[in-house]
Amino acid sequence: VTIELITTGSELMLGRILNSHQQWICRQLADLGYTVKRHVSVSDTASDIGQAVKEALARANWVITTGGLGPTSDDLTRDAIASLLGRSLRQDPVILEQLKSFFSRRNRPMPPNVALQALVPEGATILDNPFGTAPGVHFDLNPNPFQSPGQPASLFLLPGPPRELRPMFTNCVLPLLLAKHPPRQSYAACTLRTVGIGESHLEHLIAPPLQPLINAGLEIGYCSRPGEVDVRLSARGRHPDSVLESARTIVRNLVGHHVYGENEDELDAVVVNLLRKYRRTLATAESCTGGLIANRITNIPGASTVFTGSFVTYSDHAKQSCLGVRLATLESHGAVSEATAREMASGARDRLQVDYALGVTGIAGPEGGSPDKPVGTVFIALATPHHVFVIHPLNPLDRLTFKYVVSQQALDLLRRTLLADSP
Amino acid sequence: VTIELITTGSELMLGRILNSHQQWICRQLADLGYTVKRHVSVSDTASDIGQAVKEALARANWVITTGGLGPTSDDLTRDAIASLLGRSLRQDPVILEQLKSFFSRRNRPMPPNVALQALVPEGATILDNPFGTAPGVHFDLNPNPFQSPGQPASLFLLPGPPRELRPMFTNCVLPLLLAKHPPRQSYAACTLRTVGIGESHLEHLIAPPLQPLINAGLEIGYCSRPGEVDVRLSARGRHPDSVLESARTIVRNLVGHHVYGENEDELDAVVVNLLRKYRRTLATAESCTGGLIANRITNIPGASTVFTGSFVTYSDHAKQSCLGVRLATLESHGAVSEATAREMASGARDRLQVDYALGVTGIAGPEGGSPDKPVGTVFIALATPHHVFVIHPLNPLDRLTFKYVVSQQALDLLRRTLLADSP
Repeated sequence: VTIELITTGSELMLGRILNSHQQWICRQLADLGYTVKRHVSVSDTASDIGQAVKEALARANWVITTGGLGPTSDDLTRDAIASLLGRSLRQDPVILEQLKSFFSRRNRPMPPNVALQALVPEGATILDNPFGTAPGVHFDLNPNPFQSPGQPASLFLLPGPPRELRPMFTNCVLPLLLAKHPPRQSYAACTLRTVGIGESHLEHLIAPPLQPLINAGLEIGYCSRPGEVDVRLSARGRHPDSVLESARTIVRNLVGHHVYGENEDELDAVVVNLLRKYRRTLATAESCTGGLIANRITNIPGASTVFTGSFVTYSDHAKQSCLGVRLATLESHGAVSEATAREMASGARDRLQVDYALGVTGIAGPEGGSPDKPVGTVFIALATPHHVFVIHPLNPLDRLTFKYVVSQQALDLLRRTLLADSP
Repeated sequence: VTIELITTGSELMLGRILNSHQQWICRQLADLGYTVKRHVSVSDTASDIGQAVKEALARANWVITTGGLGPTSDDLTRDAIASLLGRSLRQDPVILEQLKSFFSRRNRPMPPNVALQALVPEGATILDNPFGTAPGVHFDLNPNPFQSPGQPASLFLLPGPPRELRPMFTNCVLPLLLAKHPPRQSYAACTLRTVGIGESHLEHLIAPPLQPLINAGLEIGYCSRPGEVDVRLSARGRHPDSVLESARTIVRNLVGHHVYGENEDELDAVVVNLLRKYRRTLATAESCTGGLIANRITNIPGASTVFTGSFVTYSDHAKQSCLGVRLATLESHGAVSEATAREMASGARDRLQVDYALGVTGIAGPEGGSPDKPVGTVFIALATPHHVFVIHPLNPLDRLTFKYVVSQQALDLLRRTLLADSP
């Protein structure tokens, strides 16, 4: 199968937003062994959209578009494609009812232009959109009118908002693709997600021992982002599963303590799952991370069973009144110090009566650094039932990257401690 | 001038990285009044790259590629384009010397494959790369061999790493573009950023009164994301500045209270700037947002001058012990109630001695809803020096979108109140 992706939107062509659809869709397909042959972006212009789809269907037999299905005047994809394929549009009464109920559930009047989204091209299949108003559209083109001889082709029109697009892609497009075009070669892949080790160091440790598996069909890729490095292992050929398993074992034996999960695992979810598994509770006391750790923890469904709360204590007064940090400590060591981090963690642990508490204080910048304590300085304390641990990395980064990297370091400290403390 | 952009790289097509080149280059051009007509991504395959460039030159007269100029085996752009245009490659002695000196300055031996980067297609102009090893290439195609009649066309091959690409684009490509194809029409644009109003409703209100300006060269675009909608106004023609100013005035007169900023403004930064301007202090008490509001506030440099801290009180116990919410309130109204939100906001305001405090309690889901209080229920209280306001929107969304939308609603409540309270 030859797959092409078309993302539409003037905001893309004007550089107003990042094209996250390209990465997300390509990744979902790559994880199953499919490769997107070409990705095209065009603006919200009927002629540009029509031309891009026509050219894609002339080359490919599985074409996906995103965007342009909404109710406003610049949502032109549905019309452009119906006209390209010579299909008329009819109003679908079921979708119209769904639109009306979407607004009535929210106690809001339905603006008249919303009803445009109930227009469906003749002969197309509707893809349900439980997370928004614009349904998706699937054309089963048999034959493909833009190739000769025309083989069957599939054309999908998906909505632009990610929280509508992603479930529709996963629930409607992928199952059809797997059914109609099962991956031709056997293929296996996994991504090992690591924290606390740099990309070059990681490659230096694992690449030589993995070398013999390359001839057996192994491919290795590295993807470094602030606070973590992914190792992508994939294998094609005669025995992809066993090649992959050998590679995974080698990596885990060499750097397993850095591997916090695989594939879609995220460090915050891994930590919440460990807390649930071991029935431990957590609180945080955050200064320089400003609530990011609490925010990441509470992004995980079910966090409320293990996470009690957080004190974001930006001022010295808040550190004293909320956490019981002593004035003497602040005066003699400063707010950014090992002693303050310890008292923050202990104070949060006592006041919220939890098993574990993180205390984080540092200098996110761009202002506030000194020769002694430059921007990037941080103290991360973890109060446990037995001890208070403190780590003191230096992260000279921009403000937002600093906050994120510190949250990774704090969550990883907790992850390792939970694993060490538990049977 | 018709501009097309081609980004190459298997890591793009496998979804391993975000395509930041698309946004950056499109934005640079849009800010000068140029629009990229089409953007294409292909993997590191000579035939895909050659075909994409050939097709682009058949449609456009200004084509830019990124990536594939380095020394490794998957860097194929230079070869593919030379072969497409029937040009041979010659080794450029000046570039070879630069490569040698790049390595000798760093006291590193030059690997043999590096010399490949000194190969230059016949008849091409070299673009200096002060930040890396791979020079850029400019073909002045006169005539364009893929159009008939062939008008002049320019083809640029730029390196992939952002810190090499961006200066080369700014210093080499833009000046040539401005000289050869000065923006034909004068151009003006701005983006009005709104909160608290849906895309359809917004268009319904502003599109009819803007209609008369369309003939004078106005274009309107909408971009809806959870919790906000952008209205992009742009104007070409004889008087773009006055057309734009008229349009902006119409929009601000109709929905000005929803407009929190323009262009690069973000709601969190707007709120921090208002607090600084009016010398007011803020604290937050967050249950269902789990620290997201504090995290957004503390993303803004200088937040520490106005933001004291936050209580993330996930458990009932934390709501009582940290904020002084009464047991009777929790028992008779529940943790998710107007009464609890009020006591959270007032408690945070008293305990952290600030001017304003937000209190937020709701049901983020996916669990925890009931017929009375479904997932998406939220109470947002704002304690001010004079009153406690409460709003009670319903946001039946996935967990992360819910948190973000609630943070927008809370920050907007604070923004409006600050504007109303201040002279």
